[in-house]
Amino acid sequence: MKFRRSERLVDMTHYLMNHPRELVSLTYFSQCYHSAKSSISEDLVIIKDTFENQGIGTLQTLPGAAGGVKYIPRVKKEHAEEFINRLCKLIADPERLLPGGYLFMTDMLGDPQILNEVGKHLASAVSDREIDVVMTVATKGIPIAQTVAHHLNVPFIVVRRDNIAMEGSTVSISYVSGSSKRLQMMSLSKRSLKENAKVLIVDDFMKAGGTINGMVNLLAEFNATVAGTAVLVESEFDEERLVDDYISLIKLTDVNVRERHINVSPGNYFSDRSDFL
Amino acid sequence: MKFRRSERLVDMTHYLMNHPRELVSLTYFSQCYHSAKSSISEDLVIIKDTFENQGIGTLQTLPGAAGGVKYIPRVKKEHAEEFINRLCKLIADPERLLPGGYLFMTDMLGDPQILNEVGKHLASAVSDREIDVVMTVATKGIPIAQTVAHHLNVPFIVVRRDNIAMEGSTVSISYVSGSSKRLQMMSLSKRSLKENAKVLIVDDFMKAGGTINGMVNLLAEFNATVAGTAVLVESEFDEERLVDDYISLIKLTDVNVRERHINVSPGNYFSDRSDFL
Repeated sequence: MKFRRSERLVDMTHYLMNHPRELVSLTYFSQCYHSAKSSISEDLVIIKDTFENQGIGTLQTLPGAAGGVKYIPRVKKEHAEEFINRLCKLIADPERLLPGGYLFMTDMLGDPQILNEVGKHLASAVSDREIDVVMTVATKGIPIAQTVAHHLNVPFIVVRRDNIAMEGSTVSISYVSGSSKRLQMMSLSKRSLKENAKVLIVDDFMKAGGTINGMVNLLAEFNATVAGTAVLVESEFDEERLVDDYISLIKLTDVNVRERHINVSPGNYFSDRSDFL
Repeated sequence: MKFRRSERLVDMTHYLMNHPRELVSLTYFSQCYHSAKSSISEDLVIIKDTFENQGIGTLQTLPGAAGGVKYIPRVKKEHAEEFINRLCKLIADPERLLPGGYLFMTDMLGDPQILNEVGKHLASAVSDREIDVVMTVATKGIPIAQTVAHHLNVPFIVVRRDNIAMEGSTVSISYVSGSSKRLQMMSLSKRSLKENAKVLIVDDFMKAGGTINGMVNLLAEFNATVAGTAVLVESEFDEERLVDDYISLIKLTDVNVRERHINVSPGNYFSDRSDFL
């Protein structure tokens, strides 16, 4: 059965959205739809233009026999500003204040629409880097890691603070949580990370950077490389931070429990970036 | 700027995929694309046919002034069989065996392509139920909950076995893990679940059902209703199981550590179902 252009456009959009950053050959599409490669090429031009105009992403075309097309999730700067401002408003709600100046963020980390956007925005910001794996620490980092990994189309791995039997042999390190100065342990299953992997570290929250620095040290044990660090929220920290190269969507500048006031602004997401659509 | 049909099809497919089970009015699309509702209706017929033919899902149309269209993720039976058989083969690999008969599944629970399919398949199986929230227990249930919640377009909440300060006041219960017979605690932040919510319980693994039964008891404390239970893997259990109404993708029938053999078959996913595409 031959597919009409309209049907191909719908199905190709679905396929590309489910396979970001994956090289798909024109032959593959041509066989799926029993259509000439020239027709497929025309379809891809329409999809690329629409993706770019609507802020969905872009299509990269690789010419030649081994070539094909790759969907790269990207965002428009104005969409990112809108989304990050919406997050800021959500976070600034004084109802989020918990004793000790902690913020209740469980609802945001369980909202699939917000997570999908967070993942897309963070993945877009590192879309020109080589990344094999996304890594985070349990528990609250997991939703962020999963959505970023989805948009990068690479696996994610979870470092644990408990050492459980169900993951086989593990490598553990001790680290100092930067703000509380407590000595803690983190461990990662040996099988979950290959040597020399390029790893994007993500987390929901960063203050002094101790936990992220712990993950960096753990990666050294696996001879892995840090390809970048991305967090949902960074919190202002007066002393020297243990991590200096990172991407953040949101910055907490002040949390005043007594006056029930939370000060939030966009993170460094817009600094030095020219890769918006 | 007026949109051409081809552009509308691409962008509407993207929009619907990102908003499953959400009622979208024709007016919304008509305003987005500066196009007549009659054209939008024709677009939706093409999208519906392609979604159904390709095993993406279906579009439900609600007529009238308050009407519109809803994308419902659904799978074809033959796709489900293919996917579940692939999972069976993956799980039957004797390299997964850990001491005590545990199975290493961390790689599968960190693979965004597998997770996306797991989420779509489990969400499809409950697509005719009213569900407000997906619930799981930390840590390994989280990726399953997140992907199912994504395809149902509802929030997910995470029950914890530790009781941490960062989620405000919590409700805790004690429960007996069915297979190990150990008394354990689980707790859920009070703010994360509204009264009378209809909750889908999900987890990566179920043996005696003690953990899931614990979640059922915890839900009673919130006056919430169980809308269903869905697991990735169920394990054969000789004694009486604590949970009897559930959906599983995979069934572990035998794990023999000595002979390094894992026996896996499809779960009850195909029983009593007529809602495949």
